[in-house]
Amino acid sequence: MRNKCIGRRTVAFACPPRILAGETVVSKIEGEGPLGKFFDTVLEDDTWGEKTWELAERKMFEHVVRAALEKANLSPGEVDILLGGDLLNQIISANFAARELGIPFIGLYGACSTMAESLLLGAMLMDGGFASCVACAASSHFCTAERQYRMPLEMGTQAIPTAQRTVTGAGCTLLADDTLIAKAQYQAVYVTHGVIGRVVDLGVKDAANMGAAMAPAAADTFVTHLRETSQTAESYDIVVTGDLGRLGGELFQELCKKENVDVAERHVDCGNIIFAPDQNVNCGGSGCACSAVTLNGYLLKRLEAGDFRRMFFMATGALMSTTSGMQGESIPGVAHGLVIERR
Amino acid sequence: MRNKCIGRRTVAFACPPRILAGETVVSKIEGEGPLGKFFDTVLEDDTWGEKTWELAERKMFEHVVRAALEKANLSPGEVDILLGGDLLNQIISANFAARELGIPFIGLYGACSTMAESLLLGAMLMDGGFASCVACAASSHFCTAERQYRMPLEMGTQAIPTAQRTVTGAGCTLLADDTLIAKAQYQAVYVTHGVIGRVVDLGVKDAANMGAAMAPAAADTFVTHLRETSQTAESYDIVVTGDLGRLGGELFQELCKKENVDVAERHVDCGNIIFAPDQNVNCGGSGCACSAVTLNGYLLKRLEAGDFRRMFFMATGALMSTTSGMQGESIPGVAHGLVIERR
Repeated sequence: MRNKCIGRRTVAFACPPRILAGETVVSKIEGEGPLGKFFDTVLEDDTWGEKTWELAERKMFEHVVRAALEKANLSPGEVDILLGGDLLNQIISANFAARELGIPFIGLYGACSTMAESLLLGAMLMDGGFASCVACAASSHFCTAERQYRMPLEMGTQAIPTAQRTVTGAGCTLLADDTLIAKAQYQAVYVTHGVIGRVVDLGVKDAANMGAAMAPAAADTFVTHLRETSQTAESYDIVVTGDLGRLGGELFQELCKKENVDVAERHVDCGNIIFAPDQNVNCGGSGCACSAVTLNGYLLKRLEAGDFRRMFFMATGALMSTTSGMQGESIPGVAHGLVIERR
Repeated sequence: MRNKCIGRRTVAFACPPRILAGETVVSKIEGEGPLGKFFDTVLEDDTWGEKTWELAERKMFEHVVRAALEKANLSPGEVDILLGGDLLNQIISANFAARELGIPFIGLYGACSTMAESLLLGAMLMDGGFASCVACAASSHFCTAERQYRMPLEMGTQAIPTAQRTVTGAGCTLLADDTLIAKAQYQAVYVTHGVIGRVVDLGVKDAANMGAAMAPAAADTFVTHLRETSQTAESYDIVVTGDLGRLGGELFQELCKKENVDVAERHVDCGNIIFAPDQNVNCGGSGCACSAVTLNGYLLKRLEAGDFRRMFFMATGALMSTTSGMQGESIPGVAHGLVIERR
């Protein structure tokens, strides 16, 4: 029975899952950025001693889950469900990490929306009575993404000004209910609502301008949520998008404004704050890890510290493949949303 | 709170979701097989009038959702959540179909386990209070899978005897609670339990012998479920695996036997029954659609007819990519399970 829904897409948790811990790993360039000091692990070498970048990304995925568990004094055997995914074909980072972890696993593909998708599903499964503790994780790697989606790095192709840089890293959030006695990193941060994304496509075809392709989905999710819950943008202290970047972020604000929602003052895009302007990353950060490490490294800490009390967090995914692009298709976007509150 | 779980991996639904309808489309070769008469639509042309096979697969995905809804006299606006995926990179069949359908969408990647993964999650979300009606769907296409995972068809590469043929088709199951008054295809078929899969890898590296790679995960899921619920294989009238094929199916039975579970008499593999031996498909069928069309076209009808009362249904996924294979990795498998009963 649909008794925990407000409108078509907003779900309200009867017993909001608690965020127990968040864990992050990033590469050197993210470590040198404005959020550098907030990340748990900053790698000097983006292969992390592995033979391939793919193996390094998988190691990051596995690492953040294990390290998040350590923070909460838990073992993999105490986690009921692992939910996650990544950008690589057949989500091999997540799948192979799940093999090592041995936790019952739900594999997701939501492109760069994966961090929000995994949290949304994880929270619903907990509130539904199917888990006491879930681990939600996502990863991406600049080098694996470039060679899969664009050109081999060895070619030295120049990025155009609308392009964004895939964040190298992984993030994991542990959700738990109060039946679980544990040494939590966070004491007072809860996921109270979720918003299920819808696939939206306004016809953008430029794979080097993905922020513009994803912005309509983010605006659709946020505006729909406000209407369904009879709230305004002012109901939130901060409204976060995952990796729209500079151009996409502006477009998101404009699209909201067209719907009479003025979000500009409280909107922050993870892709815009993870790198500094002088880091030569064009329109900012992207990739599953962009929102995953910004949420788990930075935003949760500020929530716990009381810098803001009520956050609307969205991660946005661009749902194209190289095949769909070559066949002339435009790029559909999706955005899943979460209300995360300090209580 | 974890109050709907039995053991670590089995979940029991408080209000078992009802299977309202199932819909299938397949290509000519599946139509000519032993289950041909059970499928709703059999295509003469596997491009279905589209310019590419990818567009045809996407059309199949969208078609089965719309046609399942028609059977139940529902519109896309009445479905709370669409869950699904496919085998293509970035699950473009599911993503682009979701764009056309406009239903709030959760994208999954579980390789050939997707039909079971989507039903498992869909049933949990319904029982958790987040939906009254969900659509669960999966697709695959022989021609899109061959060119992505193996060789361009134009090369005419010969399949080796352990290989299986990817089923061309799509299947959709509609789950609904009793608050939804609708003209249902099925009156008495319910999803009562689920089993969350775990990624298992016994080291098989041969991408042309995926049944062997997936069999350990299927045995793990089934045996774990029996132990958690204190049941025996005899508790089920039929135990179904998704696409292990001839060799994988035998291996599944052997692995169960090693754990003192004798399943041989009641075990049926979708990959073994969808094609006839004279159809020249080596070890049988595979792909997301293999279990999706066999479940929705054949098994549900036999359940409703009373031919069997209690079914354990698993779909199994081989979680490798071409990249992981080229990097020398073995093939991990996963199997999600469902108990589907006539009541």
